[in-house]
Amino acid sequence: MKIFVDAMGGDFAPAEVVKGAVEAARKLGVEIILVGEKKAVEAELAREDVTGLPVSFVEAAEVIKEGENPAYAVLQKKNSSIAVAAGMVRRGGADAMVSAGSTGAVNAAAVRYVGTLAGVDRPMAGGAFLQLSPKTVVLDLGANVDCQPYHMVDFAVAGTVYARSFLGIENPTVGLLSVGAEEGKGNAMTKEAYTLLKRSGLNFIGNVEGMDIPFGRANVVVCDGFVGNILVKFCEGLGRVVSRWLGAELKDSLDAARLEAVSTRLYRLLSPGLAVGGGPLWGVNGVVAIAHGVSRAPQIYGTIEQAKLAVSSGFVAKLAGELEKARARLAGS
Amino acid sequence: MKIFVDAMGGDFAPAEVVKGAVEAARKLGVEIILVGEKKAVEAELAREDVTGLPVSFVEAAEVIKEGENPAYAVLQKKNSSIAVAAGMVRRGGADAMVSAGSTGAVNAAAVRYVGTLAGVDRPMAGGAFLQLSPKTVVLDLGANVDCQPYHMVDFAVAGTVYARSFLGIENPTVGLLSVGAEEGKGNAMTKEAYTLLKRSGLNFIGNVEGMDIPFGRANVVVCDGFVGNILVKFCEGLGRVVSRWLGAELKDSLDAARLEAVSTRLYRLLSPGLAVGGGPLWGVNGVVAIAHGVSRAPQIYGTIEQAKLAVSSGFVAKLAGELEKARARLAGS
Repeated sequence: MKIFVDAMGGDFAPAEVVKGAVEAARKLGVEIILVGEKKAVEAELAREDVTGLPVSFVEAAEVIKEGENPAYAVLQKKNSSIAVAAGMVRRGGADAMVSAGSTGAVNAAAVRYVGTLAGVDRPMAGGAFLQLSPKTVVLDLGANVDCQPYHMVDFAVAGTVYARSFLGIENPTVGLLSVGAEEGKGNAMTKEAYTLLKRSGLNFIGNVEGMDIPFGRANVVVCDGFVGNILVKFCEGLGRVVSRWLGAELKDSLDAARLEAVSTRLYRLLSPGLAVGGGPLWGVNGVVAIAHGVSRAPQIYGTIEQAKLAVSSGFVAKLAGELEKARARLAGS
Repeated sequence: MKIFVDAMGGDFAPAEVVKGAVEAARKLGVEIILVGEKKAVEAELAREDVTGLPVSFVEAAEVIKEGENPAYAVLQKKNSSIAVAAGMVRRGGADAMVSAGSTGAVNAAAVRYVGTLAGVDRPMAGGAFLQLSPKTVVLDLGANVDCQPYHMVDFAVAGTVYARSFLGIENPTVGLLSVGAEEGKGNAMTKEAYTLLKRSGLNFIGNVEGMDIPFGRANVVVCDGFVGNILVKFCEGLGRVVSRWLGAELKDSLDAARLEAVSTRLYRLLSPGLAVGGGPLWGVNGVVAIAHGVSRAPQIYGTIEQAKLAVSSGFVAKLAGELEKARARLAGS
């Protein structure tokens, strides 16, 4: 399996990206092709022992600079690392790509160079973002705002396929995020989505509320990306503030090392993306995985592992098939 | 100052309500009129020493029963405790009312019996819900969904008046909750609201994101009640799960009493409404304060204190004046 890795994307690129990618080549049984600037990547590779490992390099001569709009730039600069990697996915030269670069740029490249599945407007973003509730996948987390009711069905299908393929849950429950448990509660969009989800053939359990995410009351929670994005960022901010509070609260009760460990663990439990690092964009006609911008080697490694899992589980074909089935059911009923 | 207290509302009524109300009469210099069933309230009053205290009783013969729709019931049963108290506020017989009963019922009674301020569609719900960030008022928290852009201006004005009157912040900053800091980021509603807020004459600082609530980056954060309600409930659920996690994590490091104290403090820091207990509905033409349904005596006391502050600061008249000013500015510019 060939995975193209954008060596230039992320706050700690190329050093941490190269490190994580080499580790993946060593342990995951995948072939790694690093894409980026020749000098920079070669300098990092020189620090690693890659003897006998399936690690190679492809040059991407153009660079997206600080201050450029990353989404526009990636479409203009076809020789930038993200564009080159995405092009390889489209042409079948790569089974997957991984980037810790700008989300906007990776999204734009995925849409333009790889394309979305039939009927999917835009890639969807989601995941089990709250590690305190590791069996609850929430989407959309910000890629889609001003959603229509049918988007909730797309999200529910994607989350269901993900929960099956990645979390090993056979018949995942689906909840619609709203302001009350009863069917009539919600806004205009969710009320209409409720009736669609009931007829979708998915394991729909009705509305869920905010507390049901940490309680893990559904395996898949669907919402407009406007709501999901605010939730994820709220949670991330809360993690910082709460772990700082805990540090002050316990500073006379625990020794410094133990205190640091507990605060850090709490922060990580609340910080989306810090555990596995990232995952594939959903609804793209190929495996394009995004790692968090602050990823270090372990998160790059984790995201490559997710990409591998997406390829080996046939995630893209499964999602395409399930989307078609749900639409046929809604059209027919 | 006469404050009518619904003795029958809340999970621990009438016992804890009567206790909290008597304490308020003792310490806050307000006159308390308990409204409810004669027998039940008198039995509770018999347990308290009310000698010399300005505590009296008004009978409300009708009872809203378990299983009734509380919002409809309160409109039909004009002799229920909430309806009687709200009627007294309208007729000027009470300066304020306080209830820990169903939010839907108190809202409906406020609208029907007391009325909203000119141009206000529906009462607004808000407060400094996150005690980790006590100088940040968020609204709406669920009373208004499917908001129009002009609602964000109403919320911003209400939050500004609240932050001035209740938190002592002279020139409160106002942020519009969205998915990115830049002006162009958001959904259709927030993009339009942004241009209105810029011209509102308020101290508008632009978009804020989810993490900016725990970081306290604005004194007033405005959002659709659909988003606010999900955030508050998410936070409440997180408080339970995180404090439980902390209990398990530290059980070998701290003695039981200290552990219990830390977990409880963390839970309270994340649990909306547990500190002060509640506050006035905003946009009503009188002071109608709602306490959390799980309120015990200290929260009832806290909500009465908030109601007193609303009356003594002239909150209703100030809000009416500021709403008018903001609308004139938007119409004129």
